[in-house]
Amino acid sequence: MRMANLVAHCGFSLSPAVKTHSSSPSHGHNNVIRFQNLKSSTSNLNLRPCSKGPNKLFVTRASAAVQGQTNVTQTPLTGGQQASGQSSSRPKKVMVIGGDGYCGWATALHLSNKGYEVAIVDNLVRRLFDHQLGLDSLTPIASIQNRIRRWKALTGKTIQLFIGDICDFEFLSEAFKSFEPDSAVHFGEQRSAPYSMIDRSRAVYTQHNNVIGTLNVLFAMKEFSEECHLVKLGTMGEYGTPNIDIEEGFLTITHNGRTDTLPYPKQASSFYHLSKVHDSHNIAFTCKAWGIRATDLNQGVVYGVRTDETAMHEELSNRLDYDGVFGTALNRFCVQAAVGHPLTVYGKGGQTRGYLDIRDTVQCVELAIANPAKPGEFRVFNQFTEQFSVNELARLVTAAGAKLGLEVQTKSVPNPRVEAEEHYYNAKHSKLSELGLVPHLLSDSLLDSLLNFAVQYKDRVDTAQIMPSVSWKKMGAKPKTVSV
Amino acid sequence: MRMANLVAHCGFSLSPAVKTHSSSPSHGHNNVIRFQNLKSSTSNLNLRPCSKGPNKLFVTRASAAVQGQTNVTQTPLTGGQQASGQSSSRPKKVMVIGGDGYCGWATALHLSNKGYEVAIVDNLVRRLFDHQLGLDSLTPIASIQNRIRRWKALTGKTIQLFIGDICDFEFLSEAFKSFEPDSAVHFGEQRSAPYSMIDRSRAVYTQHNNVIGTLNVLFAMKEFSEECHLVKLGTMGEYGTPNIDIEEGFLTITHNGRTDTLPYPKQASSFYHLSKVHDSHNIAFTCKAWGIRATDLNQGVVYGVRTDETAMHEELSNRLDYDGVFGTALNRFCVQAAVGHPLTVYGKGGQTRGYLDIRDTVQCVELAIANPAKPGEFRVFNQFTEQFSVNELARLVTAAGAKLGLEVQTKSVPNPRVEAEEHYYNAKHSKLSELGLVPHLLSDSLLDSLLNFAVQYKDRVDTAQIMPSVSWKKMGAKPKTVSV
Repeated sequence: MRMANLVAHCGFSLSPAVKTHSSSPSHGHNNVIRFQNLKSSTSNLNLRPCSKGPNKLFVTRASAAVQGQTNVTQTPLTGGQQASGQSSSRPKKVMVIGGDGYCGWATALHLSNKGYEVAIVDNLVRRLFDHQLGLDSLTPIASIQNRIRRWKALTGKTIQLFIGDICDFEFLSEAFKSFEPDSAVHFGEQRSAPYSMIDRSRAVYTQHNNVIGTLNVLFAMKEFSEECHLVKLGTMGEYGTPNIDIEEGFLTITHNGRTDTLPYPKQASSFYHLSKVHDSHNIAFTCKAWGIRATDLNQGVVYGVRTDETAMHEELSNRLDYDGVFGTALNRFCVQAAVGHPLTVYGKGGQTRGYLDIRDTVQCVELAIANPAKPGEFRVFNQFTEQFSVNELARLVTAAGAKLGLEVQTKSVPNPRVEAEEHYYNAKHSKLSELGLVPHLLSDSLLDSLLNFAVQYKDRVDTAQIMPSVSWKKMGAKPKTVSV
Repeated sequence: MRMANLVAHCGFSLSPAVKTHSSSPSHGHNNVIRFQNLKSSTSNLNLRPCSKGPNKLFVTRASAAVQGQTNVTQTPLTGGQQASGQSSSRPKKVMVIGGDGYCGWATALHLSNKGYEVAIVDNLVRRLFDHQLGLDSLTPIASIQNRIRRWKALTGKTIQLFIGDICDFEFLSEAFKSFEPDSAVHFGEQRSAPYSMIDRSRAVYTQHNNVIGTLNVLFAMKEFSEECHLVKLGTMGEYGTPNIDIEEGFLTITHNGRTDTLPYPKQASSFYHLSKVHDSHNIAFTCKAWGIRATDLNQGVVYGVRTDETAMHEELSNRLDYDGVFGTALNRFCVQAAVGHPLTVYGKGGQTRGYLDIRDTVQCVELAIANPAKPGEFRVFNQFTEQFSVNELARLVTAAGAKLGLEVQTKSVPNPRVEAEEHYYNAKHSKLSELGLVPHLLSDSLLDSLLNFAVQYKDRVDTAQIMPSVSWKKMGAKPKTVSV
């Protein structure tokens, strides 16, 4: 509640027009490029009023003036058109809500590269969380404005930018009316389980922000873009760890001689995971009641940092979180290994989950968009490629570290979560494969690359952020402050 | 969101001390008594600051000065003590959140009558909804302050009153710290499916109010009353209408040769019903993570208006809603029959649900309190006594009306909801019976009584409020205003 008010969504502090001049960035595909001076990128920013009342809302749009670049390896501009299945040559429009975040940024660039017309909607609150908790990405990340300018400079492709909070329906309405998306990919939620378990206000913030934000997206679709396809990021954590196989969203049950196919029972284990369960129920209802078309991507744990697009230039770099709040298992282990910190296995380490490479996240979203759900259809895909236990991951990182000369220790720490540490786990994940997903399975070379990446940036690591600081059982109602 | 701001929770407009003098109300058990002058009741009101900061919150408490009344049929003061199972003679304390509403008021009086020490927590927003939508209870209802004064005058029993919004955690904390409940019965939610489907702002209000309010109750319990037992009102509507038997909260599933007992799959069909599904998931998690003890009462459709306690005096009368937003099937039919309006069957009328008499609502809540869940236990009871289809109810009301000389017509109206109109329905409801529930099954005499009651007040009926005014499919994002 309180934190929601911290999110500024009216007005914007950038000057309305950034002075522009030509630049000739020197770069190459997949090479790390030093940061350019932010002002050297070729762009202008327009502040556009989106309401005529006395309290004007401003939607920020970044659109670059320079057309085209020559020395960039570009994917042909066919994705958007092919996906449409129509003769029209208009590229399909995709609104990426939460497009400044870890998965969102990689996805926005990937879809732009594939020929989709992309708009990012984001309130940038993920950056605020870092400030408030004293955290930082392992990788330096550019501002969203400079990210978009750099992308334009490199590829000639425009990504529109709507800065605002989707919990503010007036803002979201204007974004929908202005952009008229064919698909809305919704990453725009507070996405950390530990964050949601810090204290009451952050638990409430997480459920309010995620549930109300998604409700607003559904209402905006009904009101302004009835044909729009919602691609919503859920989580495999919605299912918990049942003692039976996990299916993709639905389960056919025979009980007392009768049979029905029902939503798969959910057993989420944090206020964050619960917010995704709530979303799934809300979305399913609107598909039935209003004919919304929706795909719920129950994503596993994402690892990796580079995609073809983010690797083009350092200003396009994605964030990489290694801290105890936002860092996830495999990424965190690689950073720990790089700085000589023991791998922190929570409890017995038998916790098994689905995992996927971030290059598969962007591929899966593209597949979902290119093969939309039918009107009224609520479709659930389990979005991961392999299962690992935490202990298995620790062993893999230890072996990969040894090859690079790193001596990797593993330490069991008291589990801050409430979860089974040894359990059955067998989750299905065939629907995205049937649509054509060719997975990047976890390989030695990826681990080498990720470890090398972590070693490259190890001077940026704050080891004080590595250990878990949030306890599921001890969380309290009182606001928790960060110790300095 | 917007409506939440309409709920005043800081300050209070009553004068801090109402002048008191003795009254000798004339009344008898189960007789209708004319309203007393509100000022004649014997009471005082204390405004107590609950924070010392510059923005003081005030908690309103009504406590009456008169001790005891002689001519009241009283149930022995043993319920609270017996329920405790302890040698201590201190009555068990029950906080009734939403204690000014239809089920909450009847429950608060019943528990007070049974010897429990009762506090009502309510922001009175249900009364605001009536003002905003131009609706009114069939029965005239007294203010909560006068209700409580009258109860004290009649029985000598004090009910504490905390006026405020449970979404305001500072207020709720003070109420918990001050009252120290052994049980919290939580009726304090927006409880109408049509209300939640009026427009976007009311959908968002419903989910915000219900989900965040319940989260706050859970945090207050964890922080201030760890032994407190939560008795939460859910709804049978959480289950939807699956093609298999509905069990009580959980279902044992065998799938691919393995077996687990999992939460029963939920298929709610309005933003209101969905809010209850969200609550159930949140509560289940806190039982597991924090050891909260909780009983989720998945209640059916409640009918009737009188209980032993509300019938004692007209100032104790319960509300009876017959309108298209808050009125529920059987109560609405009786009012329609009384005023000569055709019974409005939505669509085919094969919609089958569980029903119960409000006298069983209060009995079920008492049973749940007297037999609390264990620490960490999340218990679900299906709280209804009989199943009826809408067509069956219409036939019963038609027959009962004929006996009273009423000519009752039935009319099928287009179904404003999205729901199956012919379906399998077989829901289990044995757990409360096992605890000792002796149901008041729907009988000719109850229907006679309810119809007579409706006839008594038929001059208060506004027939313009009877027809459904909220469409599930046509609901829009724009705020809907009430036509005058």
